[in-house]
Amino acid sequence: MIVVMKVGSPEPEVARVCEELKGWGLSPEKIVGRHKVVLGLVGETVALDPLQIQEISPWIEEVLRVEKPYKRASREYRHGEPSEVIVNTPAGPVPVGEHHAIAVVAGPCSVENEEMIVETAKRVKAAGAHFLRGGAFKPRTSPYAFQGHGESALSLLQAAKDATGLGIITELMDAADLDALAEVADVIQVGARNMQNFSLLKKVGAQDKPVLLKRGMSATIEEWLMAAEYILAAGNPNVILCERGIRTFDSKYARNTLDLAAIPVLRTLTHLPIMIDPSHGTGKWEYVPAMAKAAIAAGTDSLMIEVHPNPAKALSDGPQSLTPDRFDLLMQELAVIGKVVGRWDIQPAMATV
Amino acid sequence: MIVVMKVGSPEPEVARVCEELKGWGLSPEKIVGRHKVVLGLVGETVALDPLQIQEISPWIEEVLRVEKPYKRASREYRHGEPSEVIVNTPAGPVPVGEHHAIAVVAGPCSVENEEMIVETAKRVKAAGAHFLRGGAFKPRTSPYAFQGHGESALSLLQAAKDATGLGIITELMDAADLDALAEVADVIQVGARNMQNFSLLKKVGAQDKPVLLKRGMSATIEEWLMAAEYILAAGNPNVILCERGIRTFDSKYARNTLDLAAIPVLRTLTHLPIMIDPSHGTGKWEYVPAMAKAAIAAGTDSLMIEVHPNPAKALSDGPQSLTPDRFDLLMQELAVIGKVVGRWDIQPAMATV
Amino acid sequence: MIVVMKVGSPEPEVARVCEELKGWGLSPEKIVGRHKVVLGLVGETVALDPLQIQEISPWIEEVLRVEKPYKRASREYRHGEPSEVIVNTPAGPVPVGEHHAIAVVAGPCSVENEEMIVETAKRVKAAGAHFLRGGAFKPRTSPYAFQGHGESALSLLQAAKDATGLGIITELMDAADLDALAEVADVIQVGARNMQNFSLLKKVGAQDKPVLLKRGMSATIEEWLMAAEYILAAGNPNVILCERGIRTFDSKYARNTLDLAAIPVLRTLTHLPIMIDPSHGTGKWEYVPAMAKAAIAAGTDSLMIEVHPNPAKALSDGPQSLTPDRFDLLMQELAVIGKVVGRWDIQPAMATV
Amino acid sequence: MIVVMKVGSPEPEVARVCEELKGWGLSPEKIVGRHKVVLGLVGETVALDPLQIQEISPWIEEVLRVEKPYKRASREYRHGEPSEVIVNTPAGPVPVGEHHAIAVVAGPCSVENEEMIVETAKRVKAAGAHFLRGGAFKPRTSPYAFQGHGESALSLLQAAKDATGLGIITELMDAADLDALAEVADVIQVGARNMQNFSLLKKVGAQDKPVLLKRGMSATIEEWLMAAEYILAAGNPNVILCERGIRTFDSKYARNTLDLAAIPVLRTLTHLPIMIDPSHGTGKWEYVPAMAKAAIAAGTDSLMIEVHPNPAKALSDGPQSLTPDRFDLLMQELAVIGKVVGRWDIQPAMATV
Repeated sequence: MIVVMKVGSPEPEVARVCEELKGWGLSPEKIVGRHKVVLGLVGETVALDPLQIQEISPWIEEVLRVEKPYKRASREYRHGEPSEVIVNTPAGPVPVGEHHAIAVVAGPCSVENEEMIVETAKRVKAAGAHFLRGGAFKPRTSPYAFQGHGESALSLLQAAKDATGLGIITELMDAADLDALAEVADVIQVGARNMQNFSLLKKVGAQDKPVLLKRGMSATIEEWLMAAEYILAAGNPNVILCERGIRTFDSKYARNTLDLAAIPVLRTLTHLPIMIDPSHGTGKWEYVPAMAKAAIAAGTDSLMIEVHPNPAKALSDGPQSLTPDRFDLLMQELAVIGKVVGRWDIQPAMATV
Repeated sequence: MIVVMKVGSPEPEVARVCEELKGWGLSPEKIVGRHKVVLGLVGETVALDPLQIQEISPWIEEVLRVEKPYKRASREYRHGEPSEVIVNTPAGPVPVGEHHAIAVVAGPCSVENEEMIVETAKRVKAAGAHFLRGGAFKPRTSPYAFQGHGESALSLLQAAKDATGLGIITELMDAADLDALAEVADVIQVGARNMQNFSLLKKVGAQDKPVLLKRGMSATIEEWLMAAEYILAAGNPNVILCERGIRTFDSKYARNTLDLAAIPVLRTLTHLPIMIDPSHGTGKWEYVPAMAKAAIAAGTDSLMIEVHPNPAKALSDGPQSLTPDRFDLLMQELAVIGKVVGRWDIQPAMATV
Repeated sequence: MIVVMKVGSPEPEVARVCEELKGWGLSPEKIVGRHKVVLGLVGETVALDPLQIQEISPWIEEVLRVEKPYKRASREYRHGEPSEVIVNTPAGPVPVGEHHAIAVVAGPCSVENEEMIVETAKRVKAAGAHFLRGGAFKPRTSPYAFQGHGESALSLLQAAKDATGLGIITELMDAADLDALAEVADVIQVGARNMQNFSLLKKVGAQDKPVLLKRGMSATIEEWLMAAEYILAAGNPNVILCERGIRTFDSKYARNTLDLAAIPVLRTLTHLPIMIDPSHGTGKWEYVPAMAKAAIAAGTDSLMIEVHPNPAKALSDGPQSLTPDRFDLLMQELAVIGKVVGRWDIQPAMATV
Repeated sequence: MIVVMKVGSPEPEVARVCEELKGWGLSPEKIVGRHKVVLGLVGETVALDPLQIQEISPWIEEVLRVEKPYKRASREYRHGEPSEVIVNTPAGPVPVGEHHAIAVVAGPCSVENEEMIVETAKRVKAAGAHFLRGGAFKPRTSPYAFQGHGESALSLLQAAKDATGLGIITELMDAADLDALAEVADVIQVGARNMQNFSLLKKVGAQDKPVLLKRGMSATIEEWLMAAEYILAAGNPNVILCERGIRTFDSKYARNTLDLAAIPVLRTLTHLPIMIDPSHGTGKWEYVPAMAKAAIAAGTDSLMIEVHPNPAKALSDGPQSLTPDRFDLLMQELAVIGKVVGRWDIQPAMATV
């Protein structure tokens, strides 16, 4: 249920309404939009009478029920206003959201050694990326495959961060690693295979760092938003949704089916920012440029792209990684589309360094 | 197997090589590319020795085997050169292919009456469309649903064609209707449900009109290309491939999952032109603009978009149809993306009439 | 809508009610169940008032609306009574349905030559099969693959029929072949790829031979029943539904996913008889026995099993074909399950000939 | 790689071979089959020469490479011999495996209160079940849905165990709960949503209780076996694989598609025991009996069936739960099939108490 305050409602009156609602056993969440303030209410609202709430204050414009099962994640919960996730990075805050320029995340699948991660970070930074991705803990189908360098890789990510000022995005697989990981990561990634690991969702919801929630391989849009709701309900409002390809009947050429239609669908259902990962989404670097451009045209808020200095020798996901040189070219192509849709603010100077 | 002739091969020599190959029991198909002439050979080529063929003429540059099961549809068969389908319309020939501007097809799901189809045709023509789509024969899940007006609708399509000069694209469901349909249609559509109706494929392959082959709901890319191969093998080289959404585990919001990654995948596998249908692909008009723009950014050669003067009263597929006014706006948005990728030649004059 | 007549309704009264309903512009279909007579009404029934119909005769017990979109195929249409398809074969009528013993169809994927088809027919007949399957016209993914021997294969099927008395089931791909095919076939098969070839469905619905309707590769249960409805609505009540494996995300080991849960689902939704094809359903002969036994335990009314005298040399589908010897063993295993569920009437004498 | 010892190899010689292989840096795992002893070797075996190993002892029959990526889970690893998981329960050890009678697991989705769980336990025990299932920690799509009573439910499961002697199977969602859960549970369940939660897999692999590994909603057979391999590789050989329905394009009637063909497929690929859960597999109790019978006919080693004293009031999964009375009837039906396939040892006395 949401309480929409009239334009120009005095701050003390909004506070008074909040206090009154707390007295009713509710936990109002104040959402400041462009024009209006909205109070989100989650809890035992079924028995509440909207008219009765309306009477609390003449500054209340209307009281509306949120019909979606994902209350806090729904677009109605913010009365149509998109949310933005502002990530603090050494180079300053980077906003991710519908009213901002596209945020670019780039880097290797996994952190292999200091030289490769620092070099890659420098190259993607020079090309205009805002964030470095790189796995310390890797979810691998086989127990005998490279599982990531773990904690030691975190310090290598820190080195890359120090060297470039890039924000760091890396995956959390085990809640036991959360503290160590959060010391380095600016955004904590929950991977596709853990999208419905509800214990983990509750834990990343109970801490402060923004969370990148990848869509499960066969998760419906609704299940995905419900997974986000777990994080929001646990107290963390900073969730970015990342589409990374779904599983269908055909995986012969593209490893997954990148569901770009999720962009307009999510736009109507949720206020949360959207990221597209065409590298995992297709599984082949040759298909990444077309899909990255398409994602921008379709309205994505950010992109995650795998870049590796030597894909042929990558310890994981080589076939879907671009070389730094190809990434440079891609960024120039993306700029063309990004600019005409008014979502690109990366300076040419950077892109050609 | 293909025989690549050297640049500058004299025409009589190419003809001589063809004759010689016919003498071997083969049916060489001459493909004139930008720089070179290639002779495509399909038939009992397993036992042939490329070196032996090479000796036929010093003008033969190389002889290569086509490894793909879709011989004629493969990109190798044209030595990497895309094909173009040139459709004759009253307004002149419209080329569809990788080296041409995007061709736009628009119109209602089904032809309902003369007024609606002619009015729609005029509106989409004014907005810049090259082709009018409209079903005379409709494949409907229920035998009790509107099945299309059949032959009488064909004359209404002719009236719309006469009034606007637009090319006509309409679906063939029964080979018995082929002659009547081909009198009006400039492109004959084979629908998703008939993609593996091999009898029908052979029949459209044995006539002259270009064929629009929609991808089956759960057809792999390879099955789709093999279906195209049926048409090519029957003698008709003019096939356009149309992606219209595949069936996955989630159909709650978008009715199908539009597989835009098919664009770069097809580009590497086949020389055939590509069309994207975001209307069927998503099932909701709200999602069509984002997906149409994405399709252009991803490199499609053409778009098929449902437009209906009054979607709420449409006899079929209303929810996925744009109104003519919304289509006007969409075309302006598409022009922005289409121009920066160098694939748009629709005149502003037309778009604003 | 259905009109349920009271137990013991006099025949002339039932006839009078039918006549009266015809006067209302309806086409009542008389369905004689075990205890009651039901009159099925399809047509413009939305505006009809059940109470008004009730007044036609005191022998009318109740008038009920059929809520399902598949009117004639729904179980309600027969007031819960299963239908049976009685197939005339040289050896006498073979009933297929819920109240009958399991009907077994066996034979090769395609008819290769007279010796193989007659030999196979003799062997499967000896093992207890009621029907011989064998393709004259074959739907093949590739235009270059063996397409079946066509009309000439029909006469070979006739020879096998003459030699054994088995009923013949073979696939129709093109309506132009219907007359020739119906001369030999006792059951006309519509294949998975043509399940939504509505033109073909209408044509097999307009003739007298029973129709075996295979489920499309990604057809929902509802779409499948709607396809059956096309046949029923065209006037042919004799439809058998055959599950043959659906397409999912995993085809590495089993080629398709055999949806045995379709059996209890269909049982609650439709009165039509059910067949299971574990050969296409799994794509490997090693998996066929487990799935055939499971199908019987789950309640199937019939089984279709591929048998080939020399699978390694089969022109199509060798890997999923049993040898005649393995089929003999399988029939013995099936008898064990079939007997305890009271659905087996094949004589041991036959099984051991 | 496996080392197959000859029939009758003296125990000390086998021990000596093990020691020698340890000296090579390998960790041989001794597998005692019906006739032969096999030594499984996992590790850096790529560079090893089978012939060189052969020379260690004249009692070595052959040395074979395991080609599958799931080494320890593969059937080759035990030279074709199925493994058995012997679960210690208060009523004695219960073996689960191909050479044993079918083990039956029954009980509610979640533990609601002491009375309901103890009553249900008594009823399913009387009907012949070997294990009680019941969730203390529940993975729910919505954070606002009942999440299970957690630790307090564990003591209720203990009460049911004390009252009946049934073994207990319950799900682990968070490694932090492992110790508390393992005190009560005889088998630890890893749910479908955590099938690729590799951190959790490693942890249940590092403890002693048998593990029930449910198949992920869209996990391929190979991914499932690789998940089992994580547990085996961590040192726990006692893994039971449970198929519980996969996700496909159709969920209108059956919530999932129960993949019974997984039974014969797994049988050829792995030695691990197989369980089928028709309750989650179909999502409707009406479909459970047909699928449970089919599972037995197809060769399952165990069944998991949801039973609730009052499904209409269940806190979760009511529609797929049988009442105790219906479960009694089902067990009688299952006995009929179970006996003819020689896999049923539940006494009639128990089934009719």
